[in-house]
Amino acid sequence: MSGETANGQTYDFRHAPDRRGTASVKWDVGEGELPMWIADMDFATAPEIVEAMRRKLDLGAFGYEEPRDDYRQAVADWYATQHDARPQTDWMVFATGVVPAISSIVRRIGHVGDNVVVEAPVYNIFYNSIENNGRHALSSDLKRDGDSYNIDFDDLEAKLSNPLTTLMILCNPHNPIGKVWTRNELEHTARLCLKHHVILLSDEIHGDLVLSGPDYTPAFSLKAPLNRQIISLVSPSKTFNLAALHAATAIVPDPDLRAQVARGLNTDEVAEPNLLALDGTIAAYNEGRGWRKALIAQLRSNRENARDFIDRNIEGLSIVGGQATYLMWIDVSALTDDADAFTDEIRRRTGLVLSSGSVYRGDGNRFIRLNFACPPNMLADGLHRLGTGTKAYRSTHIKQSDRSPYKPRRF
Amino acid sequence: MSGETANGQTYDFRHAPDRRGTASVKWDVGEGELPMWIADMDFATAPEIVEAMRRKLDLGAFGYEEPRDDYRQAVADWYATQHDARPQTDWMVFATGVVPAISSIVRRIGHVGDNVVVEAPVYNIFYNSIENNGRHALSSDLKRDGDSYNIDFDDLEAKLSNPLTTLMILCNPHNPIGKVWTRNELEHTARLCLKHHVILLSDEIHGDLVLSGPDYTPAFSLKAPLNRQIISLVSPSKTFNLAALHAATAIVPDPDLRAQVARGLNTDEVAEPNLLALDGTIAAYNEGRGWRKALIAQLRSNRENARDFIDRNIEGLSIVGGQATYLMWIDVSALTDDADAFTDEIRRRTGLVLSSGSVYRGDGNRFIRLNFACPPNMLADGLHRLGTGTKAYRSTHIKQSDRSPYKPRRF
Repeated sequence: MSGETANGQTYDFRHAPDRRGTASVKWDVGEGELPMWIADMDFATAPEIVEAMRRKLDLGAFGYEEPRDDYRQAVADWYATQHDARPQTDWMVFATGVVPAISSIVRRIGHVGDNVVVEAPVYNIFYNSIENNGRHALSSDLKRDGDSYNIDFDDLEAKLSNPLTTLMILCNPHNPIGKVWTRNELEHTARLCLKHHVILLSDEIHGDLVLSGPDYTPAFSLKAPLNRQIISLVSPSKTFNLAALHAATAIVPDPDLRAQVARGLNTDEVAEPNLLALDGTIAAYNEGRGWRKALIAQLRSNRENARDFIDRNIEGLSIVGGQATYLMWIDVSALTDDADAFTDEIRRRTGLVLSSGSVYRGDGNRFIRLNFACPPNMLADGLHRLGTGTKAYRSTHIKQSDRSPYKPRRF
Repeated sequence: MSGETANGQTYDFRHAPDRRGTASVKWDVGEGELPMWIADMDFATAPEIVEAMRRKLDLGAFGYEEPRDDYRQAVADWYATQHDARPQTDWMVFATGVVPAISSIVRRIGHVGDNVVVEAPVYNIFYNSIENNGRHALSSDLKRDGDSYNIDFDDLEAKLSNPLTTLMILCNPHNPIGKVWTRNELEHTARLCLKHHVILLSDEIHGDLVLSGPDYTPAFSLKAPLNRQIISLVSPSKTFNLAALHAATAIVPDPDLRAQVARGLNTDEVAEPNLLALDGTIAAYNEGRGWRKALIAQLRSNRENARDFIDRNIEGLSIVGGQATYLMWIDVSALTDDADAFTDEIRRRTGLVLSSGSVYRGDGNRFIRLNFACPPNMLADGLHRLGTGTKAYRSTHIKQSDRSPYKPRRF
């Protein structure tokens, strides 16, 4: 796909900004290595956002800032136009990021020693936020069902009803499996949380990146009384490749819970915007609709290309899920249940850097995660390396008699 | 002073960027009001820094970042060339700001219920960092001595020797009194902390802004074993008017203490740089020497003009200290010991917004703080308002018989 046109504007998804030798974490790799791990994109962000940032730099003086109504209005308009759900502007609290907000809320809700329920395999940083702050991650593991996963609601209720469980962190849509939770699933989850007095914290950073399947339902859009104990965390970070913008919004319908969240963010010093955070967010939400549309077309194309290539050419890998996010969840259980060793070997042999699924816990040790948000030629390079590396892995580790593609290796 | 020349570059200190109606906290004031309270400057930052920021925006992709050696080298070079003290680059830990680092370190060192020693009157946010995190602020009040203040070392030792005291927060140079601590005073303080097993956290955000008096001594430059329990916090924030850059550096010579600080910053999610933080800091430190020199000349001129105006024209006000920072500490005890009421009335009568000294505790209730970092014409406007307002205050509140300028009013 050679750039997308939307609103008369052509966007470039064919050229990756060269971040090698910069402060980029993703590109802090060896010469010739190709990083497809950490979840930022190898596309330049929307030019409308960079323009707004430039205008901010023209101001020259960069003292203390606080969000104003133009910021909250931009967030509300985005969710109304893109997701058919308008949050009230007075529900919003600025935060310097989704992860800083998660850590702060973990500290604010409940106490050291409490349980925080998650659904493994899930975004690994949740575990850091929980365990760095002296809480316990209690997983209601998602149940693999063919090429997707489902929530085991009986198990979830059992874990929510534990008196030491005070918080649940939901990933909506779910990283790394790329599943979009339906409104029914969200309501069921929220109802159980309400019943058992558990605060439901919903990380919705991938909400704008649904490629197929049901629409994303923001948790804040559930009706009272279900929304009483809900905190939605949203950000332009993933959608617009702005991880280092350090801008997110907690949307909290209940005023008492909102006051607690706001107080925690302030105490933890993650409540103040940096000099680009407000202008960048406002531009993303007010001027980024065309870019997002073009991005989704590019991501769909990339996903289909990757799926075709893997299905046709790489024996032993099997793609699971993938309705949302630019992260592909790939079952390697036909080859190994040690994804760490597998990704290490792929990197050593081909220079391709993938995420091992083991960090997401649950059944993640039998998966790898591939970030396909990059120009088509870079993706082709990555897929070629993955094919070459996997073939070499198979010939080294798998006995000839075991080489049927979908038969898990037993240990 | 009509712009300064340094290194062949002319800088503009005559025009304030117009921040009214922006997200600026300082300029969130009524029409016609003039803010001289919160500590950011009404000067545009160094053009070299804005240029570096523009170059960063050219990159287009703004994913996750981490500091590299060019960052640490820039910090080291700045302290070597500007303050004759080179910190080792491996002593440095990035933080999103001095205040976020203070709050994080308060949480990391010691426990809920512990004492944190401060020297009132001192930067009010220290109290927030201490008390929001369940610690107690234990002040060894500075002792007024004519137009300055001194440390009462006997009292300080008594407070440091309290077994519940685990941390001391020093302000070096000291805001709001503008005092620069000498190397001897720093060593004495550090020796007492070492003796009583207290970590010494030194906020050095105003270190570049010494206008007269002894040179600023970075606490990290004390020799072993005195530096063993020292954490210096530095930032280009005050020097270059970059509060919203969200960039600071903790300099911690001791490796074990450094590991604790780094772990705390990470857990508290204040360890990652935003997309301008590294480039902005590097430009400030590598290219900002001429601008800083010109700024100091402007601040000296402003300070002298303010001092002259107040001494000559405003009966009842008396300036104290002021070797460093762009904040003037003004004794109003001849008029009142209720600085809150005084600043409220000045604002109501003239629109001039000042900081009441009471937030700094100690004897601050008899002081106001005036921010003089602004173009000369704006400063003249502020001083005129202060004169008019003070005169009106005197005629309303002070009996004719009491109107000798330096006689404190008794209550």
